[in-house]
Amino acid sequence: MTDRNATVAVIGAGDFIGAEIAKKFAAEGFTIFAGRRNGDKLAPLVKEIEAKGGSIHARSLDARKEEEITAFLNDADAHAPLEVCIFNVGANVNFPILDTTERVFRKVWEMACYSGFLAGREAARLMLPRGQGNIFFTGATASLRGGSGFAAFASAKFGLRAVAQSMARELGPKNIHVAHLVIDSGVDTEWVRQRRLESLGPDALDNPDLLMPPASVAESYWQLYSQPRSAWTFEMEIRPFGEKW
Amino acid sequence: MTDRNATVAVIGAGDFIGAEIAKKFAAEGFTIFAGRRNGDKLAPLVKEIEAKGGSIHARSLDARKEEEITAFLNDADAHAPLEVCIFNVGANVNFPILDTTERVFRKVWEMACYSGFLAGREAARLMLPRGQGNIFFTGATASLRGGSGFAAFASAKFGLRAVAQSMARELGPKNIHVAHLVIDSGVDTEWVRQRRLESLGPDALDNPDLLMPPASVAESYWQLYSQPRSAWTFEMEIRPFGEKW
Amino acid sequence: MTDRNATVAVIGAGDFIGAEIAKKFAAEGFTIFAGRRNGDKLAPLVKEIEAKGGSIHARSLDARKEEEITAFLNDADAHAPLEVCIFNVGANVNFPILDTTERVFRKVWEMACYSGFLAGREAARLMLPRGQGNIFFTGATASLRGGSGFAAFASAKFGLRAVAQSMARELGPKNIHVAHLVIDSGVDTEWVRQRRLESLGPDALDNPDLLMPPASVAESYWQLYSQPRSAWTFEMEIRPFGEKW
Amino acid sequence: MTDRNATVAVIGAGDFIGAEIAKKFAAEGFTIFAGRRNGDKLAPLVKEIEAKGGSIHARSLDARKEEEITAFLNDADAHAPLEVCIFNVGANVNFPILDTTERVFRKVWEMACYSGFLAGREAARLMLPRGQGNIFFTGATASLRGGSGFAAFASAKFGLRAVAQSMARELGPKNIHVAHLVIDSGVDTEWVRQRRLESLGPDALDNPDLLMPPASVAESYWQLYSQPRSAWTFEMEIRPFGEKW
Repeated sequence: MTDRNATVAVIGAGDFIGAEIAKKFAAEGFTIFAGRRNGDKLAPLVKEIEAKGGSIHARSLDARKEEEITAFLNDADAHAPLEVCIFNVGANVNFPILDTTERVFRKVWEMACYSGFLAGREAARLMLPRGQGNIFFTGATASLRGGSGFAAFASAKFGLRAVAQSMARELGPKNIHVAHLVIDSGVDTEWVRQRRLESLGPDALDNPDLLMPPASVAESYWQLYSQPRSAWTFEMEIRPFGEKW
Repeated sequence: MTDRNATVAVIGAGDFIGAEIAKKFAAEGFTIFAGRRNGDKLAPLVKEIEAKGGSIHARSLDARKEEEITAFLNDADAHAPLEVCIFNVGANVNFPILDTTERVFRKVWEMACYSGFLAGREAARLMLPRGQGNIFFTGATASLRGGSGFAAFASAKFGLRAVAQSMARELGPKNIHVAHLVIDSGVDTEWVRQRRLESLGPDALDNPDLLMPPASVAESYWQLYSQPRSAWTFEMEIRPFGEKW
Repeated sequence: MTDRNATVAVIGAGDFIGAEIAKKFAAEGFTIFAGRRNGDKLAPLVKEIEAKGGSIHARSLDARKEEEITAFLNDADAHAPLEVCIFNVGANVNFPILDTTERVFRKVWEMACYSGFLAGREAARLMLPRGQGNIFFTGATASLRGGSGFAAFASAKFGLRAVAQSMARELGPKNIHVAHLVIDSGVDTEWVRQRRLESLGPDALDNPDLLMPPASVAESYWQLYSQPRSAWTFEMEIRPFGEKW
Repeated sequence: MTDRNATVAVIGAGDFIGAEIAKKFAAEGFTIFAGRRNGDKLAPLVKEIEAKGGSIHARSLDARKEEEITAFLNDADAHAPLEVCIFNVGANVNFPILDTTERVFRKVWEMACYSGFLAGREAARLMLPRGQGNIFFTGATASLRGGSGFAAFASAKFGLRAVAQSMARELGPKNIHVAHLVIDSGVDTEWVRQRRLESLGPDALDNPDLLMPPASVAESYWQLYSQPRSAWTFEMEIRPFGEKW
């Protein structure tokens, strides 16, 4: 693979979506800066990417802390120009409204919205002087639709979408591609499999096409990155072919 | 006027929209509990409503404080059953993304979204045991559309809309009417007049039909309140006839 | 009741929604012009409205014929100024895409979209010289969302919504209130009751609050009519409190 | 290039978007069936594609005629399995509502909506037995938003979107990818350049990034085609980076 002399920051580099994004962009020649709460958990990803000749830097990162976000992105950009910043922190919870504590409401917002604002703003600060860059945000069904029990999660995801849309309208004309990828489906992770098993029984796992493989999310981000600036997508929704919507 | 032996809470009882809501519902026989940051500023409103034979209780209220919201609504409900809770706190700001400090982003969210969640949840807690009530939220153009410079404000307003929508889907079947009133226009307040004067010159004020009178917002809330439960509106958008949209 | 010396045209004056709209506006002092395919079927409605001292003219009307729409509305306007035109023709069908014949697709469009365009345009032609009027369109869930089997119906209802929205943007600033009422629910008619009985069994009719009474739709139209021009709603969605959405 | 032994039908193969789609898919090894009103005008496109070793069949096609659409697609499918059907017929017009004749309203609908329904349905008829295929529709800003003067055009484009959405919901689970590509921008064609020149003067053409090159639309269709079925997009919006939206 050709080294592109450019970095891709993955904020919220979990074992599934985040890891696949890192692998995809590493395979394309980018140096990855991957951040998650406990950076030690990135060891297997680092090993896998390096085994294939890719380059990755793993970091512990609390994305809710302004100074940590700033340091993380500056660090990436000091290594090589920050070409792409992908914000992928999730915080899916469901509580009846009366059981939604102020602590949960605030924490979900800090994780899924506020930290996305910080990441987007700091990425923009690095990209604007160069007049170039890509800032992508992971959305969900709850980005477009509130539902019973989803006051906290949908509120944070709606809020993140507004950040993305406002940034896209401000930064698009300055040659920075801001996009919002709406995953309108469950993603195939241990956690989702377990929940489906409990609530629906083993049959719910029979059809693999109803759960989105994390690697497909990474491919979608690659599509967004590959678009020429003459035809940028702001919002792209994806779902498996068998999904009811 | 007939006393209805029921209270209407107005959270964010400013000089314009909030005051008109209070006057309208007071004129219809409800006892008003009006809260705003500095409760002393409610003195003229109290005087006006009482002069017409209405009943109003004015309170200083920081809507971002859980214990203050809870006390305020419990107080209203102890006086007479809380029939309507209207959340009307605004926080319109516009900054380029790089100039949007974390302090501004957080404060706008606390004022326009988080406090709305607290108000809605605590109102629901009082209304659910009676199986009846109305919880209304004031929205804006920025509830539906992010724009350049609006990352903070639109994020908070999108988030509030998600709270409202999630609560509507959970509480509607329990006979609580949750609605979101989208004011897709400037409202005729001193502040808006001054801004238009500065940016557009005196001609911008020539056509009174381009600025929504606060009393019209109050009428819209009255329409929402008047709907039979067989035909509830969740989201109602209003704009003056001359508005471009 | 006071005669308002003004007419309200109801196009698609069926036994349920259309009839209730006619009764409501007649009770408020308007002279009704009611049109439906077979005007003879309007006899009971005429009798009911006249018994209460109201005024109504019943007409046979094929709303898909330009000359019939024009004559019908001109006739109303010649009687007294046309104040409100309500387009309420429905055409709900469901077919798998392969079984959707070109004849069905075209007919549903002619009934639910094309005739709405004709009605709206001809009403506007009468209202514009006076600089005043109201043009309302009945929408459905399928106005906002396509669904399996709904290619024909949703296409027509989406199309009608576009007509309404385009007219609202053009005519609003000329003081003509154009609105689109989205009934996001089944309406309580014989036909809907029968369908639910067949598909869901008698229990489906147990909860009357899950089917919208036609009179509630009429009340919603009255709310739209009652709005001051300083706070017009273009789109208003209504559903019964128990509806899942 | 490798022959894929599969056909791509382009309905509405005009000189700009349609031609670029044909060139892109031909270059990828598909045999193209290109249809437009006057098939003779396809001669230069045929020459260009064949010069590069591609395969294309040019046809005169009135897409509003059911029998012509059916014959055209059957013809393509008889040649080699129909893998992709792209409906790209446009009909952009703008008239004040009073000047929108019934003839214009009907014709725009027949071109931009009805013929799309026919094309989609007949493509589905060929693809369903094989359990595989792609049906794509070209949308516009007016697919999502009615505007002053756009009653006819927006109505047709809204209607087409409903067809696409209904088909996607029905056919997705049967492994047929139905997508709607919303071009939220002017496309760089002679006609658009001329209109901008007339209305805005020569400066309007200065910035090439404000007009979308037709080849970028073709690339977007290629992205949609390339998506794995585990992550299909139904609606994808594209605009040039400098576009205000």
